[in-house]
Amino acid sequence: MRIVVLAGGIGGARFLRGLKAAVADADDAGTTDITVIGNTGDDIHLFGLKVCPDLDTVMYTLGGGIHEEQGWGRADETFAVKTELAAYGVGPEWFGLGDRDFATHIVRTQMLGAGYPLSAVTEALCARWQPGVRLIPMTDDRVETHVVVDTPEDGRKAVHFQEYWVRLHASVPAQAILPVGAEQSKPAPGVLEAIAGADVILFPPSNPVVSIGTILAVPGIREAIAEAGVPVVGLSPIVGDAPVRGMADKVLAAVGVESTAAAVAEHYGSGLLDGWLVDTVDAGLSEAVEAAGIRCRAVPLMMTDVHAAARMAREALTLAEEVRGEARA
Amino acid sequence: MRIVVLAGGIGGARFLRGLKAAVADADDAGTTDITVIGNTGDDIHLFGLKVCPDLDTVMYTLGGGIHEEQGWGRADETFAVKTELAAYGVGPEWFGLGDRDFATHIVRTQMLGAGYPLSAVTEALCARWQPGVRLIPMTDDRVETHVVVDTPEDGRKAVHFQEYWVRLHASVPAQAILPVGAEQSKPAPGVLEAIAGADVILFPPSNPVVSIGTILAVPGIREAIAEAGVPVVGLSPIVGDAPVRGMADKVLAAVGVESTAAAVAEHYGSGLLDGWLVDTVDAGLSEAVEAAGIRCRAVPLMMTDVHAAARMAREALTLAEEVRGEARA
Repeated sequence: MRIVVLAGGIGGARFLRGLKAAVADADDAGTTDITVIGNTGDDIHLFGLKVCPDLDTVMYTLGGGIHEEQGWGRADETFAVKTELAAYGVGPEWFGLGDRDFATHIVRTQMLGAGYPLSAVTEALCARWQPGVRLIPMTDDRVETHVVVDTPEDGRKAVHFQEYWVRLHASVPAQAILPVGAEQSKPAPGVLEAIAGADVILFPPSNPVVSIGTILAVPGIREAIAEAGVPVVGLSPIVGDAPVRGMADKVLAAVGVESTAAAVAEHYGSGLLDGWLVDTVDAGLSEAVEAAGIRCRAVPLMMTDVHAAARMAREALTLAEEVRGEARA
Repeated sequence: MRIVVLAGGIGGARFLRGLKAAVADADDAGTTDITVIGNTGDDIHLFGLKVCPDLDTVMYTLGGGIHEEQGWGRADETFAVKTELAAYGVGPEWFGLGDRDFATHIVRTQMLGAGYPLSAVTEALCARWQPGVRLIPMTDDRVETHVVVDTPEDGRKAVHFQEYWVRLHASVPAQAILPVGAEQSKPAPGVLEAIAGADVILFPPSNPVVSIGTILAVPGIREAIAEAGVPVVGLSPIVGDAPVRGMADKVLAAVGVESTAAAVAEHYGSGLLDGWLVDTVDAGLSEAVEAAGIRCRAVPLMMTDVHAAARMAREALTLAEEVRGEARA
């Protein structure tokens, strides 16, 4: 079985760890492969280095190098470089790059400078981390998610997503989300081929706007998924009336979508999504989701540990098989 | 008094620390300024970053950040980045960059990438370190010293100076020294002006071939020094029949110069050099140096500490005044 997963950062990475565990436990473990299409819209150039937070979170999490409690960055980090940069008066100081993490960005930037596309660089970095999945950036082109905000000082302006998320902690309303460069971008080599060859396509409980939404904004990807003719199943990142983690509600508001599990499913739409998992607390929303033409199941969606994530992955694969069975019937 | 010093790495930096101490002790401390023209021929691109070992050694030594015993690099270093780069299989591993040092190269590379010339970048880095001298790279252009060696595997080939010096420990004979790019380079802004405005020009006990020799290979610098009409005084980096530190003998052989204090003075020549300090153990060579038209004094030349370096600097300035007096007579 070939599984394709669209992934953002922490939520996507933790779901993938569960999916790997679920697949490893299954009878057909040896015949299943997982391709991850990673969001690069939150990439940022810092200190002249190319930083890819979502790709790295997936790579570190699946490769065993992640800072477990934090969810991003490396375990056992030190911060000598950051301290020195601050001593030079060079910022931003709000982005916490550790020494080990810096090495990843140095290698990446050196390879990009030598002419390798990001997809080849990512493959080279993964040669060390052995994430157990094929990790492909959504595009080799530069796409940067910007967020339009109103500020007391500068009026309305667009800031880089990381500035909105990390520096401002999404504390001001997002007026609009702009995936700058997306329209001109092309899917990275292997992305469309993976989708066309998939048996199942999964949307983890990643941010539907700035993670999965950005991947879908790369021309060709949404169309390829819709036309793949295989079950597309998602997991709600909203449980009850709040995001499981992160600040998805802030960016959902910017695109006019309510922060409910049902509204997110309808935002993806039945043209894209065949099945949708909501948390048991949201079981009452199933009817609305099904009314929108999307098969819905209510199951526990809190990824408290890898076992919980694996159970969620199994539920998603089970729902996918239901969708497949229904399509055949 | 305006003093101009041509400097390489460790020897130059330690001499400069002595010179600063000597000047601070003198009556006219407030009216003396020191301009350092730094060698950039040993600059190297590592991990996509621009590393300037000699400039940094001067900056760290005078700014109080140097690893004192080692003579280069930062005090209290850690090596997380280097360890990680090795884990990615990215080398070279023979060049020992610490985490703190990495920050300097990251800032420098970022500024160069933004379009600032190396001289402006160096000034910006010095704004933090406050070295108490004006430090100018010899040129903003790319000059890289290469060393021609015979190898069992590849036959005759040119390697970067750092590879010869650090990786090979100068263990094979240097067939030739090539300051690649020097002929096309121009002195950095301020270099010729500093020389033209100098009251004294000093050559510290730096490597006469790959440090001071490379600076003199930038078209215009040698001529400006010869025509400045002020005392030019040097200190021998050779004491007895060996370099005080480093492997100057290896590269002297490549340019056909004997490893003696007298031969180095004659290599510079009386057209450039007015005065020359040799160590007391080389007092017997004074006659040969003077016969070559260069005023010579034998004084202790071992920079065991900053006081010894300061005494050497005072001897150099005293010899310069003797030269000046003679010229007036």
